[in-house]
Amino acid sequence: MATLADVAALAGYNKSTVSRALTRPEMVAPETLTRILGAADQLGYVLNRTASQLARGRTGLAAFVVPTLENAFFAPIIGGAQARAAASDLHLTVTVAPLTTSAEVAALSRLASQVDGLILAAPRGEDAHVRAIGTVKPIVLVDREIPGLPSVVADTATAIGTVVTGLAARGHRRIAYLGGPAGSWQDPGRAASASSAAALAGVELSVHGPFPATFAAGVASAEEVLATGATAVVPYATALALGLMLALRGRGVHVPEDVVVSAEATVTDALGAPGTPAIDVDGEELGRAAMDLLTSGTDETRRLPVHVTWSS
Amino acid sequence: MATLADVAALAGYNKSTVSRALTRPEMVAPETLTRILGAADQLGYVLNRTASQLARGRTGLAAFVVPTLENAFFAPIIGGAQARAAASDLHLTVTVAPLTTSAEVAALSRLASQVDGLILAAPRGEDAHVRAIGTVKPIVLVDREIPGLPSVVADTATAIGTVVTGLAARGHRRIAYLGGPAGSWQDPGRAASASSAAALAGVELSVHGPFPATFAAGVASAEEVLATGATAVVPYATALALGLMLALRGRGVHVPEDVVVSAEATVTDALGAPGTPAIDVDGEELGRAAMDLLTSGTDETRRLPVHVTWSS
Repeated sequence: MATLADVAALAGYNKSTVSRALTRPEMVAPETLTRILGAADQLGYVLNRTASQLARGRTGLAAFVVPTLENAFFAPIIGGAQARAAASDLHLTVTVAPLTTSAEVAALSRLASQVDGLILAAPRGEDAHVRAIGTVKPIVLVDREIPGLPSVVADTATAIGTVVTGLAARGHRRIAYLGGPAGSWQDPGRAASASSAAALAGVELSVHGPFPATFAAGVASAEEVLATGATAVVPYATALALGLMLALRGRGVHVPEDVVVSAEATVTDALGAPGTPAIDVDGEELGRAAMDLLTSGTDETRRLPVHVTWSS
Repeated sequence: MATLADVAALAGYNKSTVSRALTRPEMVAPETLTRILGAADQLGYVLNRTASQLARGRTGLAAFVVPTLENAFFAPIIGGAQARAAASDLHLTVTVAPLTTSAEVAALSRLASQVDGLILAAPRGEDAHVRAIGTVKPIVLVDREIPGLPSVVADTATAIGTVVTGLAARGHRRIAYLGGPAGSWQDPGRAASASSAAALAGVELSVHGPFPATFAAGVASAEEVLATGATAVVPYATALALGLMLALRGRGVHVPEDVVVSAEATVTDALGAPGTPAIDVDGEELGRAAMDLLTSGTDETRRLPVHVTWSS
């Protein structure tokens, strides 16, 4: 097992600088911090968190880190985590950081030093970037898995397989899957699940994208979707679904009579679209489960089931 | 001018309890706190904030309070405020509190005691509830005005008047305004501005609502809108606009050829809808302006212009 001295040797700093970087990152220059965190990660060095935390005392603060606030998907997750945090006498602070650059990693490491722990929702950076934060304080991942780190994931991959199977059973022979943003951890699993369900049912599946999870991308995808002859479409996100539906209807395509587009239940219910599948993640449950893992200190990987319903 | 003793007498507590409630609300029971804040507000008692803060030292934390995280409208405002906070060496924590109950006021007062100041975005509670928070720490309002409190408001009322005038100039004789949620501070001003612009241009304006700012409400409004014979619709929020457009197209109504529906530019641009007005609030600018007021301590009321553009 790697020691503090190993990390110091690899990073090229003395032990006291390394110790400071790992326990009080706000005292260290960003480049130094990045190098030390990189070395610690490379060697798999794990700080004895409990001891160092007890020494410094509890802050009563936890951080919930999102890559963006523009995706409404995170709101109920934050709500669930906040409710559970309050029950543990923790105040939850919300911060935006996609973690794609080492400058962001350094900035978040500083914040990490001021809280008791962090929940990282769908971080977009490399594994090493995410692990670096976990070197400073306990972290729990939401909607991403990295070996050795505790995580809670909504099992949308299985749900999308169920949807494709159900669409095939309802007579759809050509189905299109609209993929999510490049770098999304969830997207490859969903595409794979859709493909194997289609193969098993003997129907065609085309995979499109990557698309950002936006209304405009949904509108722009309409032509490509129509060219496939698909009678059912499973988009990665509701914003994509809304843009696609509006563009299809604008071209005189009947939705859902000619083409079924899956979305979340609030949308399919409002539209009263018979035979349309709705995929709903219980965000509050995800948030509660993540906070439970953080406060209990359990190194667990949880996959929560995702609800599929069919409008009638 | 009211003194601490006046507040104590009205609330029925001794002066030391009142002083503690106003400076360290976390030390006082919720019911006590609510009564004391109510009395302070009723008497217009203003704590000498600067003195009490200097005495307690700076926390380096500011709070951004939103009524909900489900409205994407707040994301760029938080982003702008966060960038400006970082420049002042403040960390901005984001908290959800609609401030409609006195229990929420008490909880937020506790949080207020742990930060240097708060930005309250579109709080839904009564003036007295909002003022109570301002008794604990400096606050700045966003998208709401209360006499005597600093605020930054996006002048959507003027923008909506401009939109109605422009629609009339483009030949629309019947225009519908879809109002926002009950209790929205912005809604009455927008409706009044739309009505006076319509009267001035000699066209008919029907006002509908209140509607929650949701997709489902937009879908449900289609029948009522069609019954008015309106050829142009100005909805309170983009989610309403999306639901309405999808429902209209689903009924074979051509959007924008038969009915123009205003939205934000990302939506009208994506749809390529000629003659459609887009109303865009610069959320980041709102957030920066609010943080500037908070850090400078200026008791100012600012109204920022809102951009109106027309798709061609």
